[in-house]
This record gives sequence, structure tokens and C-alpha cells, in this order.
Amino acid sequence: MLNVGILGLGTVGQGVVEILNTREKEVEKLLGKKIRVKKILVNDINKERELEINQDIITDNFKEIVEDEEIQLIVEVTSSIEEGYSYIKEGLNKGKDIVTANKAIVSKYFEELTALAMENNVAFLYEASVAGGIPVLKPLKEHLAINDIEEVQGILNGTCNYILTRMFEEGLGYEDVLKEAQDLGYAEADPAADVEGDDTLRKLRILSTLALQGEILEGDIILEGIDRINSFDIEQIKKINSRVKLIGEGRYLEDGFMAIVMPSIVDKDSYFANVDQAFNSVAFKGNNVGELKFYGAGAGKLPTANAILMDVLDIALDNYRQENPLGDKKLKNNNENIKGKFYLRISNLDKDITEKVKKLADKILAEEEYMGIITKEIELKYIYETLEKLKIERQEYFIGRFI
Amino acid sequence: MLNVGILGLGTVGQGVVEILNTREKEVEKLLGKKIRVKKILVNDINKERELEINQDIITDNFKEIVEDEEIQLIVEVTSSIEEGYSYIKEGLNKGKDIVTANKAIVSKYFEELTALAMENNVAFLYEASVAGGIPVLKPLKEHLAINDIEEVQGILNGTCNYILTRMFEEGLGYEDVLKEAQDLGYAEADPAADVEGDDTLRKLRILSTLALQGEILEGDIILEGIDRINSFDIEQIKKINSRVKLIGEGRYLEDGFMAIVMPSIVDKDSYFANVDQAFNSVAFKGNNVGELKFYGAGAGKLPTANAILMDVLDIALDNYRQENPLGDKKLKNNNENIKGKFYLRISNLDKDITEKVKKLADKILAEEEYMGIITKEIELKYIYETLEKLKIERQEYFIGRFI
Repeated sequence: MLNVGILGLGTVGQGVVEILNTREKEVEKLLGKKIRVKKILVNDINKERELEINQDIITDNFKEIVEDEEIQLIVEVTSSIEEGYSYIKEGLNKGKDIVTANKAIVSKYFEELTALAMENNVAFLYEASVAGGIPVLKPLKEHLAINDIEEVQGILNGTCNYILTRMFEEGLGYEDVLKEAQDLGYAEADPAADVEGDDTLRKLRILSTLALQGEILEGDIILEGIDRINSFDIEQIKKINSRVKLIGEGRYLEDGFMAIVMPSIVDKDSYFANVDQAFNSVAFKGNNVGELKFYGAGAGKLPTANAILMDVLDIALDNYRQENPLGDKKLKNNNENIKGKFYLRISNLDKDITEKVKKLADKILAEEEYMGIITKEIELKYIYETLEKLKIERQEYFIGRFI
Repeated sequence: MLNVGILGLGTVGQGVVEILNTREKEVEKLLGKKIRVKKILVNDINKERELEINQDIITDNFKEIVEDEEIQLIVEVTSSIEEGYSYIKEGLNKGKDIVTANKAIVSKYFEELTALAMENNVAFLYEASVAGGIPVLKPLKEHLAINDIEEVQGILNGTCNYILTRMFEEGLGYEDVLKEAQDLGYAEADPAADVEGDDTLRKLRILSTLALQGEILEGDIILEGIDRINSFDIEQIKKINSRVKLIGEGRYLEDGFMAIVMPSIVDKDSYFANVDQAFNSVAFKGNNVGELKFYGAGAGKLPTANAILMDVLDIALDNYRQENPLGDKKLKNNNENIKGKFYLRISNLDKDITEKVKKLADKILAEEEYMGIITKEIELKYIYETLEKLKIERQEYFIGRFI
């Protein structure tokens, strides 16, 4: 018997219980023992729940889980950061294996929690924290021994991808699509973490730290979300046979690395352009294996629960790489050397401003209600400096990167 | 020290040695021990080789490997079927772990070799045998415990995909592209196994047997290659905004399964349409994880060697699922119930024949040098019956399936 404690009984926590119930026989056959959910931590033990669950295993006291010596493994699926972090830390210190889907925690405390797991000789796995159901962190880690991973890229947020797909396909405006996404449950009531790119940034922080084998923190990543894209932008980008995707990318650059989350302009026939709706995709490139791409559901109850349970099974079978997955490279942040072509749209059509912005342009796409340009091959830093010099506020521009 | 024997020193065998050499330090760090290639079996020990290799480890006598008690693991990368099979069998019986890239052997002797490995309590892994460098068999096996896999699809042959890509992109004829592919080393001097679809069929046999958890043999799979596609076909298919890809597909159908390798007509904006050149992609769908897609190099020295070494590392670390991956479902072959829309081109424009073929048509695309139609939603069996009745030979038609 493998006794498991689950922290949180929201959508994903319920999915974990549901799959364990429906696959009980197969899991027992694989492991040679049962997995028993012994305790589930919730905020309100009296809340009515759709899921049929034995009331005895519900608790609002974390101590009942972490101090239960029978519980060997804890699944953390709370939606909090600091509380979840303290649970994970306490769990690791008590010798429990930990599986989490919580990207915010992994991103913020990656090195500390990894070290703590190593010290306590327990597992700390987080496949579900990046790209939902797609099994990508495991193959990424496994490829490191026989590959230098040169770059990692991904469409990592289903909400953004859904919004962009609908805007391009249906010609709908940003606000309308966002509202639709909220109605469908694809976007939160407060969508900031998704549309402003923070969620993608956290996943890139995890992916790029693993891939490039050196610490790349949240603050090391240039961040632009999709929250300011409008119908004018869509129109311009369609005109050049392209699509916009919010892509996170980390790679070696010169004597260090670059890491960026930015709306990216991709040819409409390219791979990423055809990752649509709420799907995610992650690509990485190794010097031996070449480019690998992984595609699947980036979120959702069952895909995310599935990823959690893949980790749980790996732990139960001792079937995972137990070495420290983090490298010790000291990587220099070379983001200021990022160079490329960019789409830039500004809303302020003051003559002085447009004249100066035009100096960045290789091509002016339109100058109507807004001005949209494609820049020359140029340093991104230089664009930001120009925007600052011209006092163009965040709300007054949209930028996309040609990749 | 993990002592390894390698059978065969062709392109892939050399790739294995090369990666082991360049990643010696990292592999030792991961395993806590070295991997030593102790013996390599070749046909001609005196052959000049580009690879610098200690002549002492080269042998033309398999016994020197299989009877060496220090050798725990054998990598089989010969290009033979029966000889390679007998080596693998003998190796398993002697308690050696086996890693092979040889799809023909795995396809032909899948159940027997799997059972033999179980009996002898050793590993039998073959990630490189399907889709080259793409890590797909491992996640497929791992997903089985918590998913019913409903279907598996793939572009599984780089040669065919390269030929089709070039024909569509450059408007080149089949013979010209085939010659080009041969010159570039993408196609063999005798390309039959690739272009007639046998190679794809073998990989589908392996994938579908794993995915559907029941024996699906080579003879259970409907087979059409790309060897008869011509410029007329390309033109017609382009006209309907589509592409052709050679796709292998296995899935549950009614009370059994269907399994088919056939040129497939896919919308030009679809996922598979954009898997180009010599790349491969495999997709499978689980009831919990949803659809997963994997993309990468389907062949080539280093990607294939990489896949082999991923298996070797998993064995060295005991990091693989040790249960029998084959299911015991008795699945009925329902291929005769395969229904759909098809593209059909015939070369024989005898009036009697064209009139009868037109009866299958939902739409006649062209009737010039050849006749090309899109059929109604129809049973594939019925098309084959019609072709037979009309005495249309294999060389006189080309068929593609809309998916």
C-alpha cells in the first residue's frame, strides 16, 4: 500500500482522485500494491462537493498529513504560493516524497526545494507544473546526460493561446474573446497572470533552468504579455501571412543566455502557428537528438491530474532520475544583446513620435488609427530605449518578435 | 563499470560509440560508473573505418560477446533480420539486457522476444526502432496504466516524408525526388521497404500493439505505399488545399481494431501537413491525458544513437517499467469496416472503367491524362472490390485517405 496525502481538492485534486478511482485495478497491477488516498487537506471540511468522497479522509489540518508516518507521498495542488511552499518544505523535511503542479512555487523556490529534496533523499517532481498533461520535463531531464540542450521554446499558456487563436480565426476583439474564455472557464476572473505573461514566464524559468543547466530566475526574463494586442495588430500580422503566439524562449547567447517571453510572429504555415486553441507545445534542441517537439493539453482537470499521477507512479516504482537535475553553470544574462526583427505598434500618433519610431522601421505596415511597423534587424534594448525616450507608456504600444 | 557489446558498426553503431565518447564524463556522473564498449561485432574485422576505434575490441565472432560474462548489455544495430533475431534471442537467454534499433526484428518477433525477456528477467528495449530519436515508446508505455489509449497515428518514415514534401513544395516528379533522396542518403539504393510502406507498417505494428494492448501483426494492417503517386495526384490534392502524408494509424473500431498504412490527405493547415522533410511525428490519444503529439528526427546517426543510449541509461539506472508492456486483449480485425472518403486516381481511361469508377465519386477532380475523384463516404473494402472487379492493377491506381 502506498499512502498518499493530497493538499487541495480543487479541479486538479478532484481529477487525481477520479483517475485513481477509475484506474485502481491497473495501478495495483503495475505497482503490485494499491495507492490509497489517506488524507486530503481542504480549507472547508463542510463544503458540499460533487465528488463522492469519504468524509473521514477530509481534513483542514496539515499536521494530520505531514505527521502521519504512513503517508509517504504528498501531492500538492493548492492554489497558494506561500502556504503551499511551507507545506512542501515541511513535507520534504519530514521525508515525504512530493509531487506538485504548482508552477509558481517551483519557479520561486526551485533551487531551495530541489536541494532540500536531495538532502532528505526524497523525490520532488513537478511534471504537471509546465505544459499540463504534456510529458516534457521528464524527457528534458533525461536527455541532459547525453545532450547539450541549446534552446527551449514553448507555447506554455492555454488561455493566451485560446485568445490569440480566436482573435485570428474569428476576427474577434481582445475583450470579447477574453470574456468568452472566462465564460468557458479557460480564463480566470482575474486573467492578469495569464494574459500579462507571468504564468508563461514561470514555466520558462523552470524549463530554461533545466535546459541550460544554470540558474535563470523570474527576474532574468524579459516579459511582454498579450494583454495589449488589438484588432489592428491582428490585421497587420495577417497581412504578412503570419500569426501571433505567446512564446517563451531560453537559449545560450554568446557567453551567457537569453530568456524572453514575448508575443511572437510566426509564419502561418510554421509549426507553432498551428498549435491552436488551448493546446500547449514545448520544443527543445539537443546536440545529439536534434529538435524535439511535444504537443498536448496544457491544462485541464484530467490532463493535469494525469501528469501528477505519472510522477506518483514513477516515485512508487523508483523509476525516475534521482540525481540533482539542476546544473551548476554560472550563466551571464545577455538579454541586452537580443537582436532581431520586431513588430511594433504605437497608439500615440503625435507627429514627433511617429517620425522617430519610423527610424526603427524596415517597413511601415499601416498608419491609420495606429501605426504599425516591422523594425530593421535591431537590438531589442534599443527599441525599449526609444520607447522610454519618447515617453510611450506600456498601454500605448504592442510589441511582437519575429522568430 | 557497465560493459556493453555492440552488434554492428554501421552508421548507427558508430553514432553510439561517438556519443559515448563525447559524453563520457556526464554519463559517468549520472551512473556513478563508466560505460565501456567491450566488444563490437562486425562482418569484416579488416575493413578500414573512419571511426578511431581500438582494433582489439572488434570481433567477427558473436560468441565472444554473448559468452563474455562481463558484458551485461548488448546493443543490436545490425541490419539483418534473422541473424539479429538469433543474436537477441541468444543474448536474452544468456541473461543479457538487450537494446535494439531494428524495427523489422521487433515487429516480426515482438511477443516472443518480450516473453523471453520477462522469463529471463532482463530488459528488452527498442525506443530507436520507432520514429528514430523521438522518445515516444517510453511515454506510450508509461501512459497505459492510467489511460485507455484509443488511437495512435504517425508519420513514421522520413524517406517517404522527404519525397512527399519535395514533390509538393517544388513540384518535382516522383522519380526525380527519389533520385535526389538517394543522392542525399535519405533513401536506400533499393527504396522498396520505405516507399512501398513496409517500414511504416512495421513501426505501426509495434505502436498499435502497445497502444491497443492486443496483438496486431504485420498481416493485420492494410498497406498502401507512396510509390505510385504522380504529379497529377499532387496537382489534384493541392487544388483542394491539402497535402499527402504517409500515415500509419491504429485504433479501436467497433468491437475490435482497425490498422492501416495509407497515403493520407490532410488539410494543408493541419498538424501533420506541417511535419515536413525527413521529420517524423507520432500522436496518441488517452482518455485522461487527451491527445499527445511528439515530433523529431525519425532517423539519422546521432538521433537514433541517442534513442539507443536513452534505453541504455534507463537500464543502467533500472529506470524503466519492468512489467510486460504487451496487453492480453484479443482484438478482432475490423479493417473491412473501415469507412471514409478517399482520393482515387486511375490510369486506365477505358470508358467502361471510368463510368464505373465515377459511381464511387462524390466529386470528379479531373479527367485528363488520368482520372482523379474524391469518393463518397464509403467502405474501403468496396473500393478494393471495385478495383478488382474492373481488373485495375496495382500500378494503375493511387489511393489516399482523407483523415
